[in-house]
Amino acid sequence: MKTADEYVASLAAMKHNVWMYGARVERPWEHPQIVPGINIVRLTYEWPHRPEHQEMVTATSHLTGQTINRFTQIHQSTEDLRKKVEMTRLYCRETLCIQRCMGVDALNALSIITHRADSMFGTQYYPRLESFIRTFQENDLVGNAAMTDVKGDRSLRPHQQPDPDMYLHVVEKRADGVVVRGAKAHNTLAPYAHELIVLPTRDMRAEDADYAIAFAIQADAPGITMICRGAAPSVKREMTSPFSSKYASVESLTVFDDVFVPWERVFMCGEWPLAGYLAECFATYHRHSYCGCKPAISDLLLGAAALVAEYNGIEKAHHVRDKLTELMITAELVHGAGLAASMKGQPMTSGTYLPDLVYANVGKYYAGTNLHHEAALIQDLAGGLLVTMPSEEDYRSPEVGGMLKKYLAGPANVAVDDRVRCFRLIEDLTASKFAGLAMVAGVHGGGSPEAERLAIQRSYDLESRKQMAKRAAGIKS
Amino acid sequence: MKTADEYVASLAAMKHNVWMYGARVERPWEHPQIVPGINIVRLTYEWPHRPEHQEMVTATSHLTGQTINRFTQIHQSTEDLRKKVEMTRLYCRETLCIQRCMGVDALNALSIITHRADSMFGTQYYPRLESFIRTFQENDLVGNAAMTDVKGDRSLRPHQQPDPDMYLHVVEKRADGVVVRGAKAHNTLAPYAHELIVLPTRDMRAEDADYAIAFAIQADAPGITMICRGAAPSVKREMTSPFSSKYASVESLTVFDDVFVPWERVFMCGEWPLAGYLAECFATYHRHSYCGCKPAISDLLLGAAALVAEYNGIEKAHHVRDKLTELMITAELVHGAGLAASMKGQPMTSGTYLPDLVYANVGKYYAGTNLHHEAALIQDLAGGLLVTMPSEEDYRSPEVGGMLKKYLAGPANVAVDDRVRCFRLIEDLTASKFAGLAMVAGVHGGGSPEAERLAIQRSYDLESRKQMAKRAAGIKS
Amino acid sequence: MKTADEYVASLAAMKHNVWMYGARVERPWEHPQIVPGINIVRLTYEWPHRPEHQEMVTATSHLTGQTINRFTQIHQSTEDLRKKVEMTRLYCRETLCIQRCMGVDALNALSIITHRADSMFGTQYYPRLESFIRTFQENDLVGNAAMTDVKGDRSLRPHQQPDPDMYLHVVEKRADGVVVRGAKAHNTLAPYAHELIVLPTRDMRAEDADYAIAFAIQADAPGITMICRGAAPSVKREMTSPFSSKYASVESLTVFDDVFVPWERVFMCGEWPLAGYLAECFATYHRHSYCGCKPAISDLLLGAAALVAEYNGIEKAHHVRDKLTELMITAELVHGAGLAASMKGQPMTSGTYLPDLVYANVGKYYAGTNLHHEAALIQDLAGGLLVTMPSEEDYRSPEVGGMLKKYLAGPANVAVDDRVRCFRLIEDLTASKFAGLAMVAGVHGGGSPEAERLAIQRSYDLESRKQMAKRAAGIKS
Amino acid sequence: MKTADEYVASLAAMKHNVWMYGARVERPWEHPQIVPGINIVRLTYEWPHRPEHQEMVTATSHLTGQTINRFTQIHQSTEDLRKKVEMTRLYCRETLCIQRCMGVDALNALSIITHRADSMFGTQYYPRLESFIRTFQENDLVGNAAMTDVKGDRSLRPHQQPDPDMYLHVVEKRADGVVVRGAKAHNTLAPYAHELIVLPTRDMRAEDADYAIAFAIQADAPGITMICRGAAPSVKREMTSPFSSKYASVESLTVFDDVFVPWERVFMCGEWPLAGYLAECFATYHRHSYCGCKPAISDLLLGAAALVAEYNGIEKAHHVRDKLTELMITAELVHGAGLAASMKGQPMTSGTYLPDLVYANVGKYYAGTNLHHEAALIQDLAGGLLVTMPSEEDYRSPEVGGMLKKYLAGPANVAVDDRVRCFRLIEDLTASKFAGLAMVAGVHGGGSPEAERLAIQRSYDLESRKQMAKRAAGIKS
Repeated sequence: MKTADEYVASLAAMKHNVWMYGARVERPWEHPQIVPGINIVRLTYEWPHRPEHQEMVTATSHLTGQTINRFTQIHQSTEDLRKKVEMTRLYCRETLCIQRCMGVDALNALSIITHRADSMFGTQYYPRLESFIRTFQENDLVGNAAMTDVKGDRSLRPHQQPDPDMYLHVVEKRADGVVVRGAKAHNTLAPYAHELIVLPTRDMRAEDADYAIAFAIQADAPGITMICRGAAPSVKREMTSPFSSKYASVESLTVFDDVFVPWERVFMCGEWPLAGYLAECFATYHRHSYCGCKPAISDLLLGAAALVAEYNGIEKAHHVRDKLTELMITAELVHGAGLAASMKGQPMTSGTYLPDLVYANVGKYYAGTNLHHEAALIQDLAGGLLVTMPSEEDYRSPEVGGMLKKYLAGPANVAVDDRVRCFRLIEDLTASKFAGLAMVAGVHGGGSPEAERLAIQRSYDLESRKQMAKRAAGIKS
Repeated sequence: MKTADEYVASLAAMKHNVWMYGARVERPWEHPQIVPGINIVRLTYEWPHRPEHQEMVTATSHLTGQTINRFTQIHQSTEDLRKKVEMTRLYCRETLCIQRCMGVDALNALSIITHRADSMFGTQYYPRLESFIRTFQENDLVGNAAMTDVKGDRSLRPHQQPDPDMYLHVVEKRADGVVVRGAKAHNTLAPYAHELIVLPTRDMRAEDADYAIAFAIQADAPGITMICRGAAPSVKREMTSPFSSKYASVESLTVFDDVFVPWERVFMCGEWPLAGYLAECFATYHRHSYCGCKPAISDLLLGAAALVAEYNGIEKAHHVRDKLTELMITAELVHGAGLAASMKGQPMTSGTYLPDLVYANVGKYYAGTNLHHEAALIQDLAGGLLVTMPSEEDYRSPEVGGMLKKYLAGPANVAVDDRVRCFRLIEDLTASKFAGLAMVAGVHGGGSPEAERLAIQRSYDLESRKQMAKRAAGIKS
Repeated sequence: MKTADEYVASLAAMKHNVWMYGARVERPWEHPQIVPGINIVRLTYEWPHRPEHQEMVTATSHLTGQTINRFTQIHQSTEDLRKKVEMTRLYCRETLCIQRCMGVDALNALSIITHRADSMFGTQYYPRLESFIRTFQENDLVGNAAMTDVKGDRSLRPHQQPDPDMYLHVVEKRADGVVVRGAKAHNTLAPYAHELIVLPTRDMRAEDADYAIAFAIQADAPGITMICRGAAPSVKREMTSPFSSKYASVESLTVFDDVFVPWERVFMCGEWPLAGYLAECFATYHRHSYCGCKPAISDLLLGAAALVAEYNGIEKAHHVRDKLTELMITAELVHGAGLAASMKGQPMTSGTYLPDLVYANVGKYYAGTNLHHEAALIQDLAGGLLVTMPSEEDYRSPEVGGMLKKYLAGPANVAVDDRVRCFRLIEDLTASKFAGLAMVAGVHGGGSPEAERLAIQRSYDLESRKQMAKRAAGIKS
Repeated sequence: MKTADEYVASLAAMKHNVWMYGARVERPWEHPQIVPGINIVRLTYEWPHRPEHQEMVTATSHLTGQTINRFTQIHQSTEDLRKKVEMTRLYCRETLCIQRCMGVDALNALSIITHRADSMFGTQYYPRLESFIRTFQENDLVGNAAMTDVKGDRSLRPHQQPDPDMYLHVVEKRADGVVVRGAKAHNTLAPYAHELIVLPTRDMRAEDADYAIAFAIQADAPGITMICRGAAPSVKREMTSPFSSKYASVESLTVFDDVFVPWERVFMCGEWPLAGYLAECFATYHRHSYCGCKPAISDLLLGAAALVAEYNGIEKAHHVRDKLTELMITAELVHGAGLAASMKGQPMTSGTYLPDLVYANVGKYYAGTNLHHEAALIQDLAGGLLVTMPSEEDYRSPEVGGMLKKYLAGPANVAVDDRVRCFRLIEDLTASKFAGLAMVAGVHGGGSPEAERLAIQRSYDLESRKQMAKRAAGIKS
């Protein structure tokens, strides 16, 4: 397994085509909007070397038997799934979003679908994928998952769009590979990933066959343009933005302008009946991941809420304890669903374990639809000073800083600096640009609440419940 | 393991002192308000003999290695806990409340606390309890848990009450045993249980030592009076009350009027520092049980809701599917918490596995605070006919029955009888006296929502979250 | 204006064809299931004679200038609308549902639509209706509104139903009147009303013209059969069922078997473009009425909740006060919407004031979707004794009554009788058959939550909001 | 009444002592963070001159009979209250927060309390205040309300604080006036107000008498320092931040460092029994104002939500319409409560009309506790593109702008520019720093949800509800 410095060095050796604020980013790994993203991923290279975390963050490769980074593992048991979701919570208590889950979620989904494709269509995707995974594990790579197409008019299917490129598709098949065109949105960590794992975003029909395409491509391959957006503050100040100055994801809108992909990296090409299933598999893994990261967000919000209550001198008020308890309940309903999804995980034909779809969806759904409410609770406890708190420059100013240190003081046993820092953290986590973007990501990451409701509805065994009701009602028919 | 008929025969051999409607009930096992309760318990004697259920509903005794009814088992692993919660859901899909969980929950809690008491106080409760459990398992007994005292003025502690009997307490200690006085409320299945397992209902202080008393007593011991209330309809009609005519619990307010308990059946007597812990242990087991039964209620409500939507011809409406999905989500958030509580269960010093307190409480809390909303959803789908539906006698009347059969018809492919039965089931489950009482029991069984919030609050590791927030905010102190 | 005794005498002079429990009810005004309904209506004849209520419960006829019962008035101002909604709250604090609103709501809706019909179609409905209203006011009559058809397959329109009678329709037009067939459901107070005011239940198309029929008919006209259901307990005991033994509505499924209606009582016949508008007008009035009665239910639940908290000795607990406050907020959000609907009411072409549709719907929607939650809150405060409370016979029994009086005692300053009565009231209001039916009526009365959402959606000025957003976004198109 | 330019000129003639980012702001009326605040207030000087708004935004002075800006009026009728709340909604549909309400709310509260003080204590505050109001109206002034003290340790009362200045207080009384010290937080629009109206923030006891101080002071008086924070973006781009580039409030933490106030501007000084009542009166007026501004926020969010649904091609999806309806319901429950508070307003001894406390609080409470949920709904409809949308510079870039214009296109009939603008508006309103601060202000402005719950609880007539319940239960005591 690589070290964090080796990871950054490997990025520096690549040629990602990254754009921000209307200009090409020459050395992405040093750009102030990208470094906070890399800081997060660095942890995933550091913790595997720390004895206290090793059991959780490393795993055993089913291909080689080697100890590998868990973020490169194909899950082989319910225990692997449990460790995955617990590892995610652990990392995200430090970083809110660990980002690297998406690549491994995509590979696990592919391991299931390629195996099925080979048996349905006589293709040879699975051995190809195994070979790719072997390299991925050996080189301890970071993979982005590029799934969501830009979609154009969402009331139309891919082949119906006026512009055929609104979903990524094959424009040419050659002897040595395929050429693809289109754009994928919401590509977290793309500018500091080694590989992009590209998946279809929805179910397809026969007419959409050219859109049923999945592959892996090096992130700096010719024809790829990443137009990026960071969530870090434009000026980083450790007191003002203690969290987002250090850790913040980057999103890419990634354009594939006639990109060539060699056959050995193509894992689906035209097998449209499996496109939707692949998308759903990835979503299930990724929603399972959210059952780890969202409780971690609650953990941090809860800690900050308890702290600000103390710093305001109101920690014993009943309504304060009530609100803290509500955060606890939300966190554990979600994480409980994640653990249940792990426990009820099942091996697919390839041997890969898939978390239980219903529990993974239920957990993510509850997380996503309660996130804003959690922010509301903590803001309620913090109070209006979140809005009024003057700038760090004022706080440090020789002329007015003294006034602020006097008038922003809380209970006698709390240092005014600590109180201000606590408010700043809450502002950073709930009322900043960073927070605004993180909340949206928390609602939509892994799919919208509506997509989750549909997934639950479609896979739930409603028929058996109707039979129970019929029996109870004395209905014979 | 007994058969169902042997169970009823064993009841007939006892002399329960049961009162209802102002009169002593002579043959309780035949009383129309009690038979629906016994019908439920019968299942727990039938299913262990059915091959398809055996793995779930039987278990291995850690004392004898024998196969026993799981409702008599002291849980020895997280797997036992998982099967317990899944078994509960299975039984409750048929019965809504299987009742028999309470006895085994009480015994498991006692196995933990007596072991701890012996090591803290040098007592000999644990071997005594083991001996009792052996008998309990060998005779496949039904145990009630008698925990909640009547409490009088809830703002006062036990010893502060004007009437000292408002909490059950020891009034005399003899060489051969103790004499107790008081009353326990909410004693489900007491009139058809073999044993009452009596536990303290709250934490105690030194002055309350006489109230720190736990024991088992035969349900028909001298001095015990059960003043009972059934939830079954006064006139049973299988069409009108399809569920409650068959299955319905009985609650007893059980008065202990100077009841003698021999020492070999006493499991706590004066060890007040452990009283609250015993109550909490029982509550944790019982809330874990609710993570099985409440999803089963959702299962049945969901089935009935889906059915009535079909029978009204609205099953494809989006708002209908939305409401069904909401029921699914509620069910699985609760059951997921139950599975997580099982998975995160820990062995106590006696070897008994205790479910994780936080997950068990979170699951029950969510169940209890959403139950009425679930009923509201299904009533919303059913419509006002729930109120207007004329009586079964009208429906069968030669004069007006024909009109009803004509005007209560739904879509062409649905028999009017089936439609009426479906409405009647929903009325029975959500809008009848039976339903009213079941809803209250669903909110308060195993403790009130407020008690659950307190339990979560007290046991949650808030300190570690505050440390995370401090680190994130850059607070050093 | 009549007295209450005159009202009952007038019922006794009629020949309502009422069925219950499979038998014809000979003297409906004396039937134990019907008397609790009549008890409610009696109040509407008593309070107009009480000076302290007169301003609220009487009004001025716009036809005669006479002082009339407000339940017969055609509303002439926003002030009339305000008094209507406040009067409703006042009556319903005593009775939960005052029932008599439905007739006057129907007449107001008809006054609007007949006026419009006359100008659209050259008909003469409005003067006909005025004449009917004059009689209605002079004789201080009770009108039922018979709107909801039984509907059969709800996915089909009236004329598409396999059985054409699933919506009430004209089967013959004669020189002197029309003959109608069909059945109307949810006809509260029909067996003790003087008049049935029959309205179409939905929008119609040209093919449904025969279903676009509205009229008034004497409740005992030939061909009408009322198959009824009461919500009162089968055995009335003032301690056990203190509320429902006294007050409880009756619902009728009313069959019209070729009933003749003379033309002077026909107010719509074939003018299908106005059918939906008439249904919506009635719904608006009736949802406005709910903004009075639902807060009254909250008032009573709130009072009982506060009382039981005192009787349990927990009235100072923070969570108790929180729950009481939640009930207050719910009540006043609903009533506030009702007041706003009154204030924003507008005169229609007939001069009749119609409450604002959006506010009336928003208020009823919030009421209906929170009602179960209110019941949950009060049950939470009362505790499990709601389930366990033994029967009144046990409580009065010489053998076990003493035990109950001892063990059901609360704080020293509370009489045990009062405490038991308080629990019984809460049971009666939230956990009895009566309560079950009342809750359904609270959700569906005046239309289902989904119907209210649709009404809001359709009438809300969304376009102006889109323009605001465009302007704010700098969108010119 | 002044024009907008006259207003700005009057600011330029003052010497506000304003600090931002560690430096003194020399010409506040031209500072890029302050201009967006002034832009808002300008409207309140423009609309009174527009015929279509005049009736709503102007009023009649009860002192002079002159037509005045409604933002300077002492409300003389329920009709004035209604126009106040409707005017607020109208202005806030354009600006989200009109800011100027606070000054007039403070003056109205003072008019009530000074009148009461004079009759209780024989003081002469009311004529003094009348004279001040006359000037205020004649000069069409902007008043800030400076109420919230910084509070230090919130578990301690003012006189108990280790630092006596944590609440503003009198440090010296002179013949010509008083000298005050302390700091007030959350002073919206202070740097562009003419007057600061200073009020106590809570109830006081005798020991706190020096803290019971209210007065008006020119905003540029010696000894006042405003340390300010703006919510506008640091770089304004009309496409990126279409709203906040134009309109955004400024908050001041205002330090009073031994500021002299002449007696003719002092309106309370030591009358501690009225301090809490004054705070509550102001809060009632201000929460009433929120029943105007919060629905306006919903209006704008609703419009943007409907627009983005169209621009995504999903406007017909049922879940979309559901979410829009939810926004409508929230808006109108709040505004309905505001209208009801107006209608139920009462004249106080001074003749000033006070809105009904319960309705004003209920409305604001519902608004504040649902605001985050409204943001969540609209983000749900918009989708993840809110996060991923590249910068305006990328969009306009010659190199990658074309790719963005291609891939950000929606349905064929929607210009890509418009679609991007719509996303940007939603980002600006719900996921930016501006939005973060606005949300906190929406929760805490006029007091926290907990403060509102307490106000409702304290003033609600609970006793009458308990009497209703007693009567219904048959309880005589």
